[in-house]
Amino acid sequence: MPTHSLEEIIHPQSIAVVGASDSGRGGGFVAPLVEQEYKGKIYPVNPKYSEIMGLKAYPRVRDIPGVVDYVISSVPASQVLGMLADCSQKGVRAVHLFTARFSETGRKEATELEQEILRQAKEYGIRLIGPNCLGLYYPRESIAFHEGFPKEPGSVGLASQSGQAVGEIVQSAAIRGIRFSKGISYGNALDFNECDYLEYFMQDPETKMIMMYIEGVRDGRRFFDLLRRTTATKPVIMVKGGRGESGTRATASHTASLAGSMQVWETMVNQAGAVSASNLEELVDFSTAFYFLPPITGRRVGVAGGSGGSSVLAADECEEAGLHVIPLPAELREELKNKGSQIWDWIGNPADMSIRIDRDWDTGDMLEIMSRYPDFDLLIAFVRGHYHHGDELISAEKYLEQYRLNDLNDKPLLAVMEYMSRSNDDDDDSRLFRKLMDEVREKLVDAGVPAYPHINRAARAASKLIDYYERRRSG
Amino acid sequence: MPTHSLEEIIHPQSIAVVGASDSGRGGGFVAPLVEQEYKGKIYPVNPKYSEIMGLKAYPRVRDIPGVVDYVISSVPASQVLGMLADCSQKGVRAVHLFTARFSETGRKEATELEQEILRQAKEYGIRLIGPNCLGLYYPRESIAFHEGFPKEPGSVGLASQSGQAVGEIVQSAAIRGIRFSKGISYGNALDFNECDYLEYFMQDPETKMIMMYIEGVRDGRRFFDLLRRTTATKPVIMVKGGRGESGTRATASHTASLAGSMQVWETMVNQAGAVSASNLEELVDFSTAFYFLPPITGRRVGVAGGSGGSSVLAADECEEAGLHVIPLPAELREELKNKGSQIWDWIGNPADMSIRIDRDWDTGDMLEIMSRYPDFDLLIAFVRGHYHHGDELISAEKYLEQYRLNDLNDKPLLAVMEYMSRSNDDDDDSRLFRKLMDEVREKLVDAGVPAYPHINRAARAASKLIDYYERRRSG
Repeated sequence: MPTHSLEEIIHPQSIAVVGASDSGRGGGFVAPLVEQEYKGKIYPVNPKYSEIMGLKAYPRVRDIPGVVDYVISSVPASQVLGMLADCSQKGVRAVHLFTARFSETGRKEATELEQEILRQAKEYGIRLIGPNCLGLYYPRESIAFHEGFPKEPGSVGLASQSGQAVGEIVQSAAIRGIRFSKGISYGNALDFNECDYLEYFMQDPETKMIMMYIEGVRDGRRFFDLLRRTTATKPVIMVKGGRGESGTRATASHTASLAGSMQVWETMVNQAGAVSASNLEELVDFSTAFYFLPPITGRRVGVAGGSGGSSVLAADECEEAGLHVIPLPAELREELKNKGSQIWDWIGNPADMSIRIDRDWDTGDMLEIMSRYPDFDLLIAFVRGHYHHGDELISAEKYLEQYRLNDLNDKPLLAVMEYMSRSNDDDDDSRLFRKLMDEVREKLVDAGVPAYPHINRAARAASKLIDYYERRRSG
Repeated sequence: MPTHSLEEIIHPQSIAVVGASDSGRGGGFVAPLVEQEYKGKIYPVNPKYSEIMGLKAYPRVRDIPGVVDYVISSVPASQVLGMLADCSQKGVRAVHLFTARFSETGRKEATELEQEILRQAKEYGIRLIGPNCLGLYYPRESIAFHEGFPKEPGSVGLASQSGQAVGEIVQSAAIRGIRFSKGISYGNALDFNECDYLEYFMQDPETKMIMMYIEGVRDGRRFFDLLRRTTATKPVIMVKGGRGESGTRATASHTASLAGSMQVWETMVNQAGAVSASNLEELVDFSTAFYFLPPITGRRVGVAGGSGGSSVLAADECEEAGLHVIPLPAELREELKNKGSQIWDWIGNPADMSIRIDRDWDTGDMLEIMSRYPDFDLLIAFVRGHYHHGDELISAEKYLEQYRLNDLNDKPLLAVMEYMSRSNDDDDDSRLFRKLMDEVREKLVDAGVPAYPHINRAARAASKLIDYYERRRSG
């Protein structure tokens, strides 16, 4: 198999940032490379500076003494053609155009200029990412376009037409424990487009699953074909921007995309076996399940740890999400009875833990029992255990012992941590509690348990996962 | 009009807490009364104590020297009949039975005992709230069953069959600026039931809108009739627990309710003109719009302040929620052009503020312009403005100036504050930012602007509000 053309350009030994400055977004491309400790050379390019962030700055690309593999352009649109010529002289093979104000403005001259840039780049043999985008995040090689992005690589390939979306996705996914192989914000998709990025991730051994935010597809036939082939081995979870009339107008002025009909899109995504999410929150929710859980192909869920109304609504929301909240198996009830439970005949699924009498018998014990019954395909736990020991907060380890994660016989488990969606007071108690819960969440992530702020979000994510593997199994 | 029978019992001059202790939930009923600075007498009753929280404790209700209007019972189920006799001797008129383990256990003896309690209470002329519930929250008279409940009264009447739900609703609604006239957790609804609570709020002058969490309805005809009459003057927003098969099983073991068919329920709620929410988050979301916004009967929304992909998805999600994201009116574009905007032909609705060139022209300016056009029935603003001035965080006042709230010509406005759903790091910067945002949120509340963590939640809430007032106007 020949090397994918994207593979050829994303391992630069040196990066020039043209239009860099010591403030704002332009210079901003230097800072995250420094923060990530990028191993190659970083060359700021700007005639107005002799130095940026302690790095020598050059007036033009051709003034750089060494080889330049990859260029990030922050110059105004009107200067791009000149910059490309400069890059060509230097033998640059790839340019990421952060530069915007092209076809997305809807203006004739800007659209023509964009086409001329493509024509010139082709002539020079320069490949383009963008324009109007944030470019490449590649943690394994310490490349990023935002400060604060995780340095550890992972297995998710992310391609997004919106740079704002990449920022939001990476940061909210990071909190949920997801890490990325590569993330690409690709804007107007002038040269490489959504098909190329998908094709790249399909064959990329570093990528096990794919997240996409797409506004428009240029070649529907090719995209569908690639998508179908990809989902046979890697889950693809995608959000479509521009689903309605106003959204379609918005995609035009955002990335000059033609959004197309939503019905056609939904049919295409379903037939191709991809997973559709309706916003970035769902995208991250669904991906969290795919990232952590094994293939599950049954829908029978055991729920434990809720209390009162939350248990009742948990049943409703799981069922509405497409899970089966089965009654407790008779043998399980018998086991509870034999163990001396006073509520063996009363407790159900969801197991409402507020009705128990024996304080030593906890959510973890219910999960442990459920995990031994083949009647359950997966479990969902409300994580809202006791967090005090006298006046002290207990440790995250101690807190999690309540859930007996090591005794669950590898039964797939999702956690619901309602604190995640709460805005808390800034007093000391709230801060300590939040800190404890953050630690608990991190430990759940380490244990491979996906965590959600609400049961409906956990249930919907689980259901999407089951849909996908059911379909994949049935071929 | 005769005084409603609930009105007769909810202004107690004295409250006895039977089964009080100095720890746990039982004693817990004393603590919130003390915290709220309840003006009447509080009498802890427990033969094992001589004093609880600095208050003299009595062995039995009849040992209390003064008049006792209202009793909260935490004694075990087996002791309730004796306690009722005791109350009867003392002339008590109302008992709230926190005591549980009755019909909700599904056990014959427990159900028979519950019925016997009702029979005895009727004989004694004692009215019952509960059993299996948390009872009354009445901030205007400093009565509460949870510590940390707001002391300030408001205009929302809340009735919930689940006590856990009341706690969750009151606390999450408080963060959103909602305050309550009365809140009642009523559990098994043995004596007063959902019809009585609804009827009470219908005629209660302190109550302008109503929130309900209901698991079962005893008298469907009466309930429908009351609901229809109530919604003619007061919005009623309700969550039904026990919508599916497993949820129905769960309501039986939670409050011994017969959940009934969901289709029948949905039809009934719609025909009666009430607003249906599917979980507590939606209940609070929808109620926030009703609490702050005027009657709106048009669906044309102007959206400003998003950026890139978030603007595109904002359009989609507003449209999917039933709002109309109209194109910018030609006159408005003309006005932008005359004001020298360089993007007058490019910017749209949603107004993607990331494309602007002039940093002085901000989301607030876009909102101000939109507010002057009758084409828009309401506005939604992404609140994600600049929060730095050099290295310093700006003040909440300064931050909000960006949104020109005083210049919006009373156009209804909803705010989207995405930080609300983010779990942030515990470093100093994050904490200061969170503090600033909390202050901003509070100031928005003071200005009567409902705030949401996501645009889809804001849009859905607005749409429910419009549904309600459209229907009410068309009679």
